[in-house]
Amino acid sequence: MNSIQQSFSVRFTYPVHFTEHLFEPANPLLLNFFKRQHTEGFQKKALFIFDEGVIPYHPQLPAAITAYFATQNVVQLIPEFITVPGGEQAKNDPALVDRLIAAVDQYSIDRHSYVVCIGGGSVLDLVGYAAAISHRGIRHIRIPTTVLSQNDSGVGVKNGVNYRGKKNFLGTFVPPVAVFNDFQFLTTLDDRDWRAGISEAVKVALIKDPTFFERMEADAHALAHRDLEAMKHLVHRCAELHIQHIAGGDPFEMGSSRPLDFGHWSAHKLEYLTDFEVRHGEAVAIGMALDCLYANRIGWLADDDLNRILNLLRTLGFSLYHPALDADNSEGILRGLTEFREHLGGRLTILLLKAIGRGVEVHEIDAELVRQSIAFLRETETQPV
Amino acid sequence: MNSIQQSFSVRFTYPVHFTEHLFEPANPLLLNFFKRQHTEGFQKKALFIFDEGVIPYHPQLPAAITAYFATQNVVQLIPEFITVPGGEQAKNDPALVDRLIAAVDQYSIDRHSYVVCIGGGSVLDLVGYAAAISHRGIRHIRIPTTVLSQNDSGVGVKNGVNYRGKKNFLGTFVPPVAVFNDFQFLTTLDDRDWRAGISEAVKVALIKDPTFFERMEADAHALAHRDLEAMKHLVHRCAELHIQHIAGGDPFEMGSSRPLDFGHWSAHKLEYLTDFEVRHGEAVAIGMALDCLYANRIGWLADDDLNRILNLLRTLGFSLYHPALDADNSEGILRGLTEFREHLGGRLTILLLKAIGRGVEVHEIDAELVRQSIAFLRETETQPV
Ligand SMILES: NC(=O)c1ccc[n+]([C@@H]2O[C@H](COP(=O)([O-])OP(=O)(O)OC[C@H]3O[C@@H](n4cnc5c(N)ncnc54)[C@H](O)[C@@H]3O)[C@@H](O)[C@H]2O)c1
Ligand SMILES: NC(=O)c1ccc[n+]([C@@H]2O[C@H](COP(=O)([O-])OP(=O)(O)OC[C@H]3O[C@@H](n4cnc5c(N)ncnc54)[C@H](O)[C@@H]3O)[C@@H](O)[C@H]2O)c1
Ligand SMILES: [Zn+2]
Ligand SMILES: [Zn+2]
Repeated sequence: MNSIQQSFSVRFTYPVHFTEHLFEPANPLLLNFFKRQHTEGFQKKALFIFDEGVIPYHPQLPAAITAYFATQNVVQLIPEFITVPGGEQAKNDPALVDRLIAAVDQYSIDRHSYVVCIGGGSVLDLVGYAAAISHRGIRHIRIPTTVLSQNDSGVGVKNGVNYRGKKNFLGTFVPPVAVFNDFQFLTTLDDRDWRAGISEAVKVALIKDPTFFERMEADAHALAHRDLEAMKHLVHRCAELHIQHIAGGDPFEMGSSRPLDFGHWSAHKLEYLTDFEVRHGEAVAIGMALDCLYANRIGWLADDDLNRILNLLRTLGFSLYHPALDADNSEGILRGLTEFREHLGGRLTILLLKAIGRGVEVHEIDAELVRQSIAFLRETETQPV
Repeated sequence: MNSIQQSFSVRFTYPVHFTEHLFEPANPLLLNFFKRQHTEGFQKKALFIFDEGVIPYHPQLPAAITAYFATQNVVQLIPEFITVPGGEQAKNDPALVDRLIAAVDQYSIDRHSYVVCIGGGSVLDLVGYAAAISHRGIRHIRIPTTVLSQNDSGVGVKNGVNYRGKKNFLGTFVPPVAVFNDFQFLTTLDDRDWRAGISEAVKVALIKDPTFFERMEADAHALAHRDLEAMKHLVHRCAELHIQHIAGGDPFEMGSSRPLDFGHWSAHKLEYLTDFEVRHGEAVAIGMALDCLYANRIGWLADDDLNRILNLLRTLGFSLYHPALDADNSEGILRGLTEFREHLGGRLTILLLKAIGRGVEVHEIDAELVRQSIAFLRETETQPV
């Protein structure tokens, strides 16, 4: 009777919809989702949580949602809309997790009911976490409102909050039951958030899809000047690549390979060194530039590919140098390598490009070549367009 | 570009070992597990958490563990052993979750390291929860020390803590990476915990395995008199049935069928009505008796089967009546039906037996027949052996 080997698979499915004006009466997308999920005998509820930063730009939203749900009875709308502060602060305050759990309790949201979150990646991460731990997981629907959350975080399976300043220290892998990307939200982002979200698209193109990279080169000026049609294509293709990556690989990251961390070892450190004044996407743009210069110096990435990458990032409006890169002391950017190694459990793994669309993992990085790459960025940096 | 359907499966595997004297130098089981998991370049750590209620009965445990790990270097033992109070109080105090998370932080336990918990179902539920939410899931190893946790909760995929007195309000579905059932722990349980754990075994036998039921009938006296060999068989077979149930069905309970809740609608309420003086397993014994009497009254369960079930439970030493069953007011036992319906999301589903080993779900329960069944238990109850 020595041992029994348990083994099973759990299947997860969810649709990711691309739409505009989600809550207009003529748009049946969301309601059709609830209708498909309807089960005779169950009165399902929907509790809405808003990113406070979205409301001033979309003041009609609460009334539109109330009107949208008034026409049906497959799902019962909880009349109170809960709002939480937008941005990273949403993930820093443990009281917000408590507040969301208290709301789940107060409105008796059970495992057959829904928590619907409208907001940027930060608020989605917070709400996804609260939903995941309540009743061992309440169904949650994401309505992402930023470029980053529509093309990356919102379509994925992770959630999380910070703990004593440690990023995403608490969190789970739990997929949403549905994602609704409404492009209209993107029109009200400030320029920095519009741009920052694009860098994760450049990242997936660089590691997975040279054709997508070419399309971004063609659209670079339009994207930099906030052309919504160009952005729709970018968000859709980037989301699609993420979705495929998750399904094709290791959705809950049980192994140790993390190709999507391309450009991130220095980016994380740069965000931290600048006290998060540099946004994540902005830092990733710099981090990718740095690792591409490095790959070129070790003879991997050809000059032509390198120049195309630096040009695309600059045309998009990214600044590719920040003085914090040169704070070359024990707490400087190179310390990011050590922290990244620790984060990975003791063994450093960094993806570097052989060509646009093709990366290979390395386990060592030469500090001197990193310093040379930083010097190059410092000397060549011009003002963003 | 309207929608993308995401769809993927995640595979979970873990061994459930049955052993004795897990930490004796001659027992290589645990060390072999760590060796199999070893990856070149990663220094994995193991953080041990103890159920405080186990230590007085097994005072040699900390020294034995230290000695056991001293002989190897595939895994680094964290020298501090953390202890948390045993029993339900472990799940009632949010400060304990914080304390465990702080330890994960303090000792830099990453996603490749282990949290190892030694304790009853309550402490395992707490530690499993803390491990599941730290870094989106640290590998956790369960070493269950009670009958219930060895044959049921410890081999499954759920964890949880209570929130404002609401049982398991917070929790997740996250499998352990391994379970080590050491039968020696069972020898130090008090009689009530020894017995209470048996009732979940009677439950799975009643809904899944008539042969197992017969074996328990044959072993009933031995079990009642704490025969460890009889208990080993029971724990192994019950664990096996649970493991098969999880793998064969709906591991993360996404649907609404819950056959393992047999006998539980009244059990939950009875625990609550007696302020948890009646233990879960004791309440389940009464709940099963009640639902079997009910099934007999509606013409499903034959007299002979009914009598065998009541006899087995009584021979095992269970008391099948409690005065709280007769507190027939708006807060009485029948209120448990309403709460169970709400818990299920609006539709009542109760499994009732047609025969030993064969259950069928119903969606309505006749209150008057429940009252008659309670009256029968009151009138026929004799003192437990
Ligand atoms: N879960 C994941 O897989 C994953 C992946 C990448 C990043 N993230 C996380 O995402 C977070 C960043 O998310 P983000 O980039 O979406 O930014 P954000 O959520 O921090 O939002 C930035 C600001 O934009 C505001 N805002 C949101 N939508 C708006 C709109 N439509 N119009 C105007 N203002 C709007 C917000 O209120 C906030 O002030 C980080 O915490 C990061 O860790 C998570
Ligand atoms: N996660 C699941 O799937 C699941 C399933 C069923 C029950 N549970 C939970 O399990 C909990 C009950 O667990 P339990 O029945 O194991 O009891 P328990 O963990 O509450 O322990 C009961 C008492 O026994 C002590 N103890 C533990 N091991 C001992 C030993 N070897 N010798 C002497 N004393 C020992 C404990 O310190 C405690 O005082 C409940 O909270 C219940 O909700 C969870
Ligand atoms: Zn990123
Ligand atoms: Zn039970």
